[in-house]
Amino acid sequence: MPINPIEWENNRIKIIDQTQLPHKLKFLYLDSIEKVKDAICKMKVRGAPALGVAAAFGVVVGVQDSTSRDFNQFKREVEGVCRFLRSSRPTAVNLSWALDRMYRVVVNNAEFSLDKIKQKLAEEALCIMEEDRQCNRAIGEKGASLINDGDTVLTHCNAGVLATAGYGTALSIIYQAKNEGKKVKVYVDETRPLLQGSRLTCWELLREAIEVTLICDSVAGELMREGKINKVVVGADRVVANGDAANKIGTYSLSVLAKENKVAFYVACPLSTIDLSIASGDEIPIEIRSDEEVTTFCGRRCAPEGVDVYNPAFDITPSRYISAIITERGICRAPYEESLRIIFGG
Amino acid sequence: MPINPIEWENNRIKIIDQTQLPHKLKFLYLDSIEKVKDAICKMKVRGAPALGVAAAFGVVVGVQDSTSRDFNQFKREVEGVCRFLRSSRPTAVNLSWALDRMYRVVVNNAEFSLDKIKQKLAEEALCIMEEDRQCNRAIGEKGASLINDGDTVLTHCNAGVLATAGYGTALSIIYQAKNEGKKVKVYVDETRPLLQGSRLTCWELLREAIEVTLICDSVAGELMREGKINKVVVGADRVVANGDAANKIGTYSLSVLAKENKVAFYVACPLSTIDLSIASGDEIPIEIRSDEEVTTFCGRRCAPEGVDVYNPAFDITPSRYISAIITERGICRAPYEESLRIIFGG
Repeated sequence: MPINPIEWENNRIKIIDQTQLPHKLKFLYLDSIEKVKDAICKMKVRGAPALGVAAAFGVVVGVQDSTSRDFNQFKREVEGVCRFLRSSRPTAVNLSWALDRMYRVVVNNAEFSLDKIKQKLAEEALCIMEEDRQCNRAIGEKGASLINDGDTVLTHCNAGVLATAGYGTALSIIYQAKNEGKKVKVYVDETRPLLQGSRLTCWELLREAIEVTLICDSVAGELMREGKINKVVVGADRVVANGDAANKIGTYSLSVLAKENKVAFYVACPLSTIDLSIASGDEIPIEIRSDEEVTTFCGRRCAPEGVDVYNPAFDITPSRYISAIITERGICRAPYEESLRIIFGG
Repeated sequence: MPINPIEWENNRIKIIDQTQLPHKLKFLYLDSIEKVKDAICKMKVRGAPALGVAAAFGVVVGVQDSTSRDFNQFKREVEGVCRFLRSSRPTAVNLSWALDRMYRVVVNNAEFSLDKIKQKLAEEALCIMEEDRQCNRAIGEKGASLINDGDTVLTHCNAGVLATAGYGTALSIIYQAKNEGKKVKVYVDETRPLLQGSRLTCWELLREAIEVTLICDSVAGELMREGKINKVVVGADRVVANGDAANKIGTYSLSVLAKENKVAFYVACPLSTIDLSIASGDEIPIEIRSDEEVTTFCGRRCAPEGVDVYNPAFDITPSRYISAIITERGICRAPYEESLRIIFGG
């Protein structure tokens, strides 16, 4: 892949400011937890796996100028950093998952000097980033087996390079299928309100010379009815023990339309997105975002003043609508309680 | 209703320029068929019943300065005007329906002077407008019987006052239910790409003091899954003999989501929108509109250059997803071949 959406450079997190795409390829350098949180909240960096990587480096940034004098003080400092970053976005579990993993580095290395622990934290964050890239490639390889030459695939939001440390989840499958010589056409939902589909997914698919057609979100169902879509492939922000999946608002609707029209519906995500601590999708916290995302566009008002808005960022797709969940370790199918437990080695 | 979306004033068609809403309530005066066609193509006036009324007055405007010397010349002139206006938008049948009705006025009055025929044409257009208002009120009265106190109703696009000569079709039902003292809450899909839901429906519902919440199109399914919507009520651009309905893109998806979640799905339209000459929805011509509606917003590009776009303005809802079709003469239910024939007195 020719572009790294997130990197660690001179003790700063280097990210692409995704709010500027597709107009400008602008990089941001984050050197404080305030900047990291702001970038996450404003969706300058987004996508469940990328949020995990950003949060991990956020901890490194947060403690690199630590003035703690002893381990207990340092541990409390890390706890504070984790609490601060954890509150930025609630739905994608990767953020919490990465913070938990970073915190374990601290508690598991109490015997080392603070400098050594900081070094181990930096190593862990780099490891999380590198693992994400490897996971994404593996997801692509496993998932490409489900794609046939000549398929037309629908995707929603952005589960591509830009949502990860590289390669993508859902789009990794497309990229790999193409590498294997399969001709794949992709329809991309624009994905209101923030247009990650038109702004980000179209941008990266065009860069990779994939045949892409942009549609409004409400067009996908009709295309399925007309038999013009063979498969739906989306990412996820959190998959829980029974296979229910939280993903960008609109995903649930696509899954129902896919089932009604006998179109396969695949969710692609790394194990770091799977949260076995939660039994069903009803328990996943759903982030409600600001009215302005819906009522304005490029600063211009497009709805009457005074109107109420309901703007959930995610919805829940019950697992009965999901044909398969594609992970780096393999493809899970219903019953998901069993297949997900097995893939975790349980 | 405090506002007339279309009027006949000093030999000109007075319309609200709906592209300016909700920012400006600007009126346009159309005194040539070129201006009428432009207003229709650019959706300054839109909505199936309103298109019928605009087309009817378009014929009046088109012949009011006629230089024809005899009946046959005049008839050919009217044919030319009708052909010109008919080509403006293909899906809503009301446009053709109104032009056919105006043309019949000409051929049925060959014995009269041209001035008299012109007068009869103006009377016919006024009659079409007045009939539409009466139909809408009747649709409201019939349809309100399906709405319960405390219902939460979803609507899509704009099938309100602004889509008609007054009162609306789907929204007429909401207005009437409110008049009957029923408390109704309305969710409105913003309706990409042209945002008729946020710009027009929210605007007119707020004016009528209806409790309204704006959502992105992709939110509707999740709300149904969560049990937060009791009924879906939409308009139609063309309903055919088997009950299939063409309506704003996204309607089909809502109908599937409604069925899956056991939510009633109602189509409200006057008989002038029902085209018994066509057997099934597959035969309805679907207008494909410009890429720019999707790739730009308020003149600002929101998708990468070079991306392909597919932008159908309508989709087809097969009648098996429609709980009832509400007309001015009564409520039709499946089997629609029979109930629609009966309502036409056949």
